Order: sequence, then C-alpha cells, then structure tokens
Amino acid sequence: MPAIPARDVKRLRDQTGAGFADCRDALVEAKGDFDKAVRLLREKGSAAAEKRSGRATTEGLIHAYIHDHRIGVLVELSCETDFVARNQQFRDLANDIAIHIACNYPAPARWVSREEVPAAVIEEEADLIRVQLARDPKNSRKPEAVIERIIEGKLNRFLGERILLEQPFALDDSKKKRVKDRLVETAQTTKENIRIRRFVRFERGEDLG
Amino acid sequence: MPAIPARDVKRLRDQTGAGFADCRDALVEAKGDFDKAVRLLREKGSAAAEKRSGRATTEGLIHAYIHDHRIGVLVELSCETDFVARNQQFRDLANDIAIHIACNYPAPARWVSREEVPAAVIEEEADLIRVQLARDPKNSRKPEAVIERIIEGKLNRFLGERILLEQPFALDDSKKKRVKDRLVETAQTTKENIRIRRFVRFERGEDLG
Repeated sequence: MPAIPARDVKRLRDQTGAGFADCRDALVEAKGDFDKAVRLLREKGSAAAEKRSGRATTEGLIHAYIHDHRIGVLVELSCETDFVARNQQFRDLANDIAIHIACNYPAPARWVSREEVPAAVIEEEADLIRVQLARDPKNSRKPEAVIERIIEGKLNRFLGERILLEQPFALDDSKKKRVKDRLVETAQTTKENIRIRRFVRFERGEDLG
Repeated sequence: MPAIPARDVKRLRDQTGAGFADCRDALVEAKGDFDKAVRLLREKGSAAAEKRSGRATTEGLIHAYIHDHRIGVLVELSCETDFVARNQQFRDLANDIAIHIACNYPAPARWVSREEVPAAVIEEEADLIRVQLARDPKNSRKPEAVIERIIEGKLNRFLGERILLEQPFALDDSKKKRVKDRLVETAQTTKENIRIRRFVRFERGEDLG
C-alpha cells in the first residue's frame, strides 16, 4: 500500500466534500492517483445518494435572492433533518441555486425536474418541431425513423434548457456542471437527500401574461 | 388669520408626510385645529391620488422578506419614476407589505385587489354561505331580501380577509389601518401612484396542493 500524503487527502476533501476516511480510502484504492480517487468518490457518492433516495425530505429552508431591486427569486430546498437545514453548505447551495435561477441561464427555468413537465407540453413542443422540420425541403427525403430521432434530440435540448435540474449551472466557470451536479455535491457532503421543492422568479415590469 | 406655530406644521408634516406648504395651508384652513388639518390633508391627498390614477406605473422594485429561513415573501411594487423607486420610504413600504404578507393576518392573502378575484370564486363562496344559512332553522322565516343582505355581508368579510389591500394591516398597533391605507400614506408622500403588482409567499413544507 502506497503512502498517501496528508495534503492529498486534504485537497481531495476540499474538492469533493467527502469525509477524511472516505478520501484516504479512495486514494489508497486509486493507488495515489488523484483524479481516479475523485472518480471513485463520485461513484460512491452517487451510489450512496441512490440508497438515500427512499428517505423523506421534510425539513429544509426558504431562501431569497434579490439582484439590484430588479430581480427576485424564492426557492424552497428540502432535506431530511433540521441539522442539515442549519448547515452552512446547505444554505450556500440554496443561495447558489437562487442566483442561478435569477440568471435565466440559458433560458428561464419552468420546472424543477422532468417529472413535473406536463405531457401536453411535451406533445405540443414535439408537434411544433415536427412542423418546423417539414417546412425544410431537405428533410423530405429522410426516413421517418431519422426524423423521429431529430425530434427527440431537439425536444431533449428544449427540456434541458427549461428544466432547472438539467440546466447548465450558471456559476460553474468550467461550463461542465449542471444544476443537478451542484446539488449532488452538497448532498454528498451532508449525506442526506436534498430536493429543490419549488421556486419562483419575479423580474420588475415583466409581462404577467 | 390665526398664527400657526411652526412646531404644529412640523408635527403635521411628520404625521402625514405632506409638504410644508400643504401642512401650513391645511392648518390655516382648519383655523389651527390639528385633527381637522389632518382630515383636510387626507381628503386632499386622496383627491390628488385620484388625479394621479391615470398615470402609468412602470418603475418599481422587487423586494424579498425572509422570516427565520421558514417563510419567504416576494413582492413587486410599482411606481411612476425611478426616483421614487430608489426612495427609502418606498422601500420601507415594500418591506412593511412583505412582512404583512408573511404574517398571513388575518388569513392568507390570495389576491391583491377586488378586481383580481375571479367571478367564479365569488359565486362559489356565495353559494356556500347560502347553504350554510339554509341549514340553520332560525333563518327559515327570514325574507329573501334579508338573507341576501346577510350573504353580502359575509361575502364582504370573506373577501376583506383575503384581498391584500383590504386586509387589516398587521403592523398597525392601532388596528385601524388597512394595507391600502399604509400604501396611501407613502403615495401621499411620494406624490406618485403606487401599486402592489403581485406577491408570492412560501412557507417551508406547506402542502403544494
């Protein structure tokens, strides 16, 4: 077993939010390869998150973010215990998500998760895409199966831009994380299910439809 | 013309928020009677507010109030100019209204004003009251006109408790002001139309229906 420098363990803890023992074990298993240890922790974190997913999230908090008196966001985050609800990392997560929602990036979020999207919206959007494709003559000779795949791709992009958890996370400079990933990071630290229960965004003077 | 003590003018300005000249004129017109001067200013203030009511309210602000990470309110207040939107009294008004909404006093507000209440809600509530009255034998001998007046009274109380502007203002210790009165106070100071455009209230863990 290779010697694991304490500063690698610390760096890994800082980056992943995992506990000391988990980080040391991951580095040992990865034979000191830092990036591999990160992957191992992620895999374990996700596995642990799945085990947790049956537990109820009845605690949590309401958080507000205001930008320049002009944009306001309220978000409700749920967790399992009051202990986590009072945790600073949980509160930082609530703030990050509220700021993300304020950004409307890359489009205004309409739903928290895919499960919330009404079937009628999906059908309507698919029909719209179908009509748009039919207008372009170069699609007329494509087999129906190809058209269906194009529709599916476009529909997934549409939903990915409007479902909060699927959106690219606006505060991630690397442009690789989705909002979901930001949430999982904190859930791995707190070892509890975390859920975005609902959100609302007000922008001054916007059309109320 | 009686001499008007400067300290009466100052007291009147502090109480009503009206300008120096308006306060002096009101005291002169009321022959120095302070309470009468307050009434005169109120009457003029309301008259001025009516003159203003044709002007558009396109500026304003979004304000958030959070109580104990457990209750959150967003409110949009509109006014006519950016100058008023940046005014501290306008911001204090936004905060007072947000706190009032957080209190759910005397019941959760569902609409900003009477105009927003859907006709179907009024009909449904009136039917409910009618059924409740019919259940009580002592109402069976009352003429229909009396029953209708009772229904109207109960309906008005129901709406008065659920329309934000009609609600008794939770932060008024005298228990005489409605939310509308709190708003008019600031409107008289700023000399601009002020409107509550919309609001939303989140309470942690509440049933989302």
